[in-house]
Amino acid sequence: MSKHKVVFQPVGSKIQVDKEASILEAAAEAGIYINSLCGGEGVCGKCRVQITAGVAKPNTHSIRFLSREEINSGFVLACQTEIKDDLEIWVPPEARLEEEQILTTESMVCYEPPQDLQVSETFDIPSLLYLPVTKKMYLSLPEPSLADNISDLDRVYREIRKKIEAPYLEISLSSLRELAQLLRESKWQVTATLHPYDEHCIEILSLEPGDTCAENYGIACDIGTTTIAAQLVDLRSGATLGVEASHNQQAKYGEDVISRMIFACGRGGISPIHQAVIDSVNKLIDILLEKHSVDPNNVTALTAAGNTTMTHLFLGLEPCTIRLEPYIPTANFLPAASGGELNLHLHSKAVINCLPGVSSYVGGDITAGVLASGMSNSAQISALIDIGTNGEIVIGNNEWLVCCSASAGPAFEGSGTKCGMRATRGAIQKVHIHSDEVQYETIGEAKARGICGSGLIDTIAELFRNRIIDPNGKFPQDSSHPRVRQNEDDMEFVLAPGEETETGKSVVITESDISNLIKSKGAILAAIRVLMNSVGMSFEDLERIFVAGGFGNYLDVERAIFIGLLPDVPPERVKFIGNSSLTGARMGLLSRHALDRADTLARQMTYFELSVDPKFYDEFVAALFLPHTDLDLYPSVKRVME
Amino acid sequence: MSKHKVVFQPVGSKIQVDKEASILEAAAEAGIYINSLCGGEGVCGKCRVQITAGVAKPNTHSIRFLSREEINSGFVLACQTEIKDDLEIWVPPEARLEEEQILTTESMVCYEPPQDLQVSETFDIPSLLYLPVTKKMYLSLPEPSLADNISDLDRVYREIRKKIEAPYLEISLSSLRELAQLLRESKWQVTATLHPYDEHCIEILSLEPGDTCAENYGIACDIGTTTIAAQLVDLRSGATLGVEASHNQQAKYGEDVISRMIFACGRGGISPIHQAVIDSVNKLIDILLEKHSVDPNNVTALTAAGNTTMTHLFLGLEPCTIRLEPYIPTANFLPAASGGELNLHLHSKAVINCLPGVSSYVGGDITAGVLASGMSNSAQISALIDIGTNGEIVIGNNEWLVCCSASAGPAFEGSGTKCGMRATRGAIQKVHIHSDEVQYETIGEAKARGICGSGLIDTIAELFRNRIIDPNGKFPQDSSHPRVRQNEDDMEFVLAPGEETETGKSVVITESDISNLIKSKGAILAAIRVLMNSVGMSFEDLERIFVAGGFGNYLDVERAIFIGLLPDVPPERVKFIGNSSLTGARMGLLSRHALDRADTLARQMTYFELSVDPKFYDEFVAALFLPHTDLDLYPSVKRVME
Repeated sequence: MSKHKVVFQPVGSKIQVDKEASILEAAAEAGIYINSLCGGEGVCGKCRVQITAGVAKPNTHSIRFLSREEINSGFVLACQTEIKDDLEIWVPPEARLEEEQILTTESMVCYEPPQDLQVSETFDIPSLLYLPVTKKMYLSLPEPSLADNISDLDRVYREIRKKIEAPYLEISLSSLRELAQLLRESKWQVTATLHPYDEHCIEILSLEPGDTCAENYGIACDIGTTTIAAQLVDLRSGATLGVEASHNQQAKYGEDVISRMIFACGRGGISPIHQAVIDSVNKLIDILLEKHSVDPNNVTALTAAGNTTMTHLFLGLEPCTIRLEPYIPTANFLPAASGGELNLHLHSKAVINCLPGVSSYVGGDITAGVLASGMSNSAQISALIDIGTNGEIVIGNNEWLVCCSASAGPAFEGSGTKCGMRATRGAIQKVHIHSDEVQYETIGEAKARGICGSGLIDTIAELFRNRIIDPNGKFPQDSSHPRVRQNEDDMEFVLAPGEETETGKSVVITESDISNLIKSKGAILAAIRVLMNSVGMSFEDLERIFVAGGFGNYLDVERAIFIGLLPDVPPERVKFIGNSSLTGARMGLLSRHALDRADTLARQMTYFELSVDPKFYDEFVAALFLPHTDLDLYPSVKRVME
Repeated sequence: MSKHKVVFQPVGSKIQVDKEASILEAAAEAGIYINSLCGGEGVCGKCRVQITAGVAKPNTHSIRFLSREEINSGFVLACQTEIKDDLEIWVPPEARLEEEQILTTESMVCYEPPQDLQVSETFDIPSLLYLPVTKKMYLSLPEPSLADNISDLDRVYREIRKKIEAPYLEISLSSLRELAQLLRESKWQVTATLHPYDEHCIEILSLEPGDTCAENYGIACDIGTTTIAAQLVDLRSGATLGVEASHNQQAKYGEDVISRMIFACGRGGISPIHQAVIDSVNKLIDILLEKHSVDPNNVTALTAAGNTTMTHLFLGLEPCTIRLEPYIPTANFLPAASGGELNLHLHSKAVINCLPGVSSYVGGDITAGVLASGMSNSAQISALIDIGTNGEIVIGNNEWLVCCSASAGPAFEGSGTKCGMRATRGAIQKVHIHSDEVQYETIGEAKARGICGSGLIDTIAELFRNRIIDPNGKFPQDSSHPRVRQNEDDMEFVLAPGEETETGKSVVITESDISNLIKSKGAILAAIRVLMNSVGMSFEDLERIFVAGGFGNYLDVERAIFIGLLPDVPPERVKFIGNSSLTGARMGLLSRHALDRADTLARQMTYFELSVDPKFYDEFVAALFLPHTDLDLYPSVKRVME
C-alpha cells in the first residue's frame, strides 16, 4: 500500500496517508474541515481545493463543477479525488469551515433564565424547584457491631433515609460488588451520588470514599446539526462555569440532517456518524473539564437537546425512517443512558438524559426552546420560531400548543446561494443601501469573503426598500442601478467589488439567490399562517414572538418583518432567546421538575404535518412575495411602500 | 515445564498435567471430585488417595493424617501432593464425591405447593396470584402512515396499553437501538417480553420477531453449599418441566461455607469461586434445556434461593465480612441482575432475582422455606427447622416471626465422624438394634461404605433405647455388647463388620462420633429453646414443625425426638417439606406477589444472634444429653426409659 504525504494550506497541517483515501477524508483526519454539503457524494461542488504541488487530476464526474480556468490552475473536488502522490493542497476560503471562528461571543449568547429558579416568573412555583439530576450526599456511617449488625447496604440506606425521605432506594449489582471493601477502606466515610429519578425511587449511582460533595458537576449540551455547544454546570450552586462550542464532526458525512441520514442508512452505517457526535461532545467536555480543573469522575449528569435526527445519532438509534414518509422516529421519549454506555468522558454511571421531541421534525431542541421561553407558563399567545434549514414553529400558551416544521432550505445558513457562507469571519452580516451607495459590515471586520443569512435578509430588505427589486424579488429588466449587472445566466447585485474582498472575486447576490431566500422565508411564514389558522387566530393575536437559534442573534427584526419572514407585529414583541436548546438542556440538568415538564410539553404539543397539508401549499405560494401577496397582512410595510 | 499423565481409578479418567498442580487440582480438572472438607488446606485429611503407579511422596505435613501402613501402601493427601511423575491414582470410596449418586430420587423430592396457586390454602388470596416474573405479549402493530405517525416506541407502547394497564413503560437503550429495524423486518408482528417489576412500571426486556408467546420459560434454583438444584418451569402454565441437581463445583475450594469464604477472601479471590457456582448453574441449565428442547433465548427469568454466603458468591459479592464478628453481609435484599451480567446460559436480558435473606446466617433459602411452608399465613404457631452444617430455625405465625442460626457442625452431613459420609450410594441410612442383633439399610442397597446423617441418628437412638449407651452418650466401661469394642483412643460400636463392607474395613460409630452428634443436636435444640423462650412459649405450643432440607427426607421423626434433636411433640405435627428453598424460589418465579411477600417476610423476621447470647450457652449445655438434662421436656422418652 502506497504512503503519501499531504500538506493542507494555508493552515500547514501535514498528514501521512496510509491507505486509499480521498482528499476530503484525509483533510478530516488532519483536522481540516472542508465544506461538503452533500457529504462527499460529489453533487454539491462545494469542496473545491487547489493542488499546488504533486499530481492529482479531477475525474470526469467532477468536471461539471469546475471552470476550464480552474481545471488549468489545479482545482479538483476534494471528495472525488484520490490521493496517489505527495500533495500540497490549498483550501480556498469559501471551502473552509473555520472551526475557531464559529466561537464568536455572539454565537454563545444564551438566553439566561433568572438565576434563582425558585422565584422565577418564567417558571411555575413550586414545580420547577431546584432539583438537579444528581445529588451527592456525604454519609458518615456508624461502624457495625453485634448490636447493630444490619447489612452494609441497609446501613447506607438507613443513613440516607435519615437525611431524606426515600420510600425506595436502588443500587446496581456492579456498585454493590464494590460496597463491602469501599466502606471499610474508607473507614465508613463515603459520599453517595444519588439519582432522584422520581419522587419515590432514588438510585445510588455510585459511592466513593470520603466527602466529595463539594465536587458535583453536570454538562448541558445542545447538539446542533452544525454546531455543538456545551456548558459545564456546578450542580451544587446551579452556576454555569463555562461554555464551549465546536463543529459537529459529523459534518464530514454531510452538512445537513438529510445527507447524514443517507450516510448512516446507506454505505456508512450508523457507527461512524454516532461516533463523530460522541467525539465532538467529548472534545468539548475535555476542554471544559481541563479549563476548570474538574475530574471526569465528578461529572455525574449530562442533559442534551437536539433535533430528532441528532438525538437519534447521539444515542446510536437508527434515523433511517425519519427521512421518508410517513416520517417515523424510533422514539420521541428517550430512556436515560449512562456515561459508559455512550463512551462519554464523564463518570461511567453519569445519567444521560435527552429532552423529548414531538415528531421526526420537531425535536428535543424545540421542546427545550418552549421550556426556556416560558411560553407555556403564561396565558399570553406566543410563537417560538427557530430558523434554520428547517424552520420549527410553536404557537400557544399555558393551555395549548401547536407546532410544525417547514423545510426552509439552507439559504439562512448561507448555503444554496452563490456567495453564501456561514456566519463566520469575513461574512457580510449587515447591509445599508442608500440609493447608489452600499455600506456593509463583515464579521470580525475582515475582508469580505461572502454573505451570511442575516446579511442576505438585510440585502433583500434594502434592495426591496430602495425598489432595486420588485415584490417578486426580480430586478427590473431596465435597472439602471450601478451595482446591478447581468451575469452568465442571471441578474446580480454587487455587494462588495473584487478589490474589497479576500478572494478578489466580487461578493454578489443573484436573482436566483433572492428567489431562494424568498422561498425560505415563504416556507416559514406559511407555516406560521397554517398554525395560526388552525387555531382560528391571526398575526395580531401574537403577543410575543420568541426567535431562537444562533441565527436569531444577528437578525434585524424590522427587516425580517419587512421582507415577510416574521409576522407584522410591533417589533418590541419580538424577543431573541439565543440558543434556547442549550438553555432548556441546562434547565433539565438543574431541575428534575423541568425534565418532567419537558415530557409534559412534548406530549401536549399538537403536531401538524405540513408536507401533506394542502393549505400549506396555498399559503406558501401566497408568501412567495415581498412581504406577502396580501399586503394587508403587513400594514407596516404597506405604509412605507405605498 | 514438565508434562505428566495422570490416570484416576476406578473411573479411568486421564489427564495431561501441564503445570505444577496438586493431585486435588488435577482431579478437579479431570472432573473427579475428591472430598476436601478444608478446601485443600491440608487440615482435614479427607482427601487420601493411593498412588498405584509412579512416584509421589507425602510431605511431612501430611504424615499425621496417614498411618504407617497407609504410607507404605502409597497413600498421600491429594491436596498436599504435587505431581512430578506420570501417576496412576486410586481414589478410595470414602474420598469420592460421586456426582451421579447424589441424584437419587429422594434428594430431588420437593415439597409441592398446590398446583393452582390461586386457590391454595397455603397462600393468601389474592396476594399470591399467578404473575410470573416475565410475560410475553404478542403485538400485531398497525403499519405507520401519515395519519398515524407516532414513533416506533409509542406504537409499541400503545399496543401494550390496549391489553394491559401500564401507567409507566420502560425500555433500555440497547433494545431501542434495534427497534426500528426489528419492527420493519418482522412486518410489525413482534413479541415483547415484559418484566412487570411493580404494578405501575413495566419494562420491555426484549422484542423479537413473530409470535413466540408459546415459549417462555424460567429457572428456579436452589443454590446449596453442597448441591445445586434447578427446575425448568413453563412460565405460561406454571408447570415444572424438569429438575436437575449436581454438586456445587465450589466444593473444590472447600466443603463448607467457611472454607469457601476463606478461599474467596484470601489467596483465591472471589472470581474463581463465583465462576464455579455460575458454571454449576449453567451446567444444570444446559441439561434441562437440552432435555426439553428449549432455546436459551426463551428462558427469560431465573429465581434463586441460597444461604447468604452462596447468594453473595452467586452474584459476585464479597462474602468476607460474613464470617467474622459482627457478621455483616453486603446486602440481604439483592438487586435484580440480568442473565448477561452473570454470564448465565439464558436470554442476556433474563431477570435474575435472588430471594432476600435476614442476616449473614439466615439467608434467602430460609426465607424461601418460610414462604413455601405457608407458616406465615396461619395463626398456628409453627417452627421451620432446616438441619445442615448450620441449623436455621424460624418460629412464628402470621403475626410474628423470630429466627436464628446455630452452628451444628458437619455431623448431620456425614462429616466429622470416623465413618461418616454423605447420603449417597452405600451409606447406612437406617438402623435397627434388637439387643445383640443389628440390622441396617444402605442407600442403593449397596455394600456399606459408611454412615450418613440419618443413619447416625438412627444408630444413636437405637443405642440409647437399648441402653448400650447412657444419656451422656458414653458406653459403660463394663459394656458386654458383642459389637462394642475398644479402639486405639476410644470405645466404638461396629455397625457393619469388614466382611460386609465395600472397603473391607468395619463401619463403626465411636464414642467421640456420638459426642459430636450430641453437640450438633444440642445446638439445634438449644436454638429452638432460646427462640421459644424469647416469645414466652414452650415446646407444647408448637402446633406444626416443618423440617426442611435434603436431610429431612430420610429423618425418622420419632427417633429424632427420641434423641432430643426435635422437640417432644406428637410426631404427626412434624411435616417434611423437602427442598423448600427450591420450592420458594419457584414460587418467586411464578408469582411476583410471592417475591414481594418474601421481601416482607425477610423484613419481618426478628433475628437472634445466638453467638452472643449467654442463654444460648446454658441451653446448649443442658441439651448435651439424650434427650435433654431436663427429662420433663421429653415426656414421651421419659415414659419409655424410666
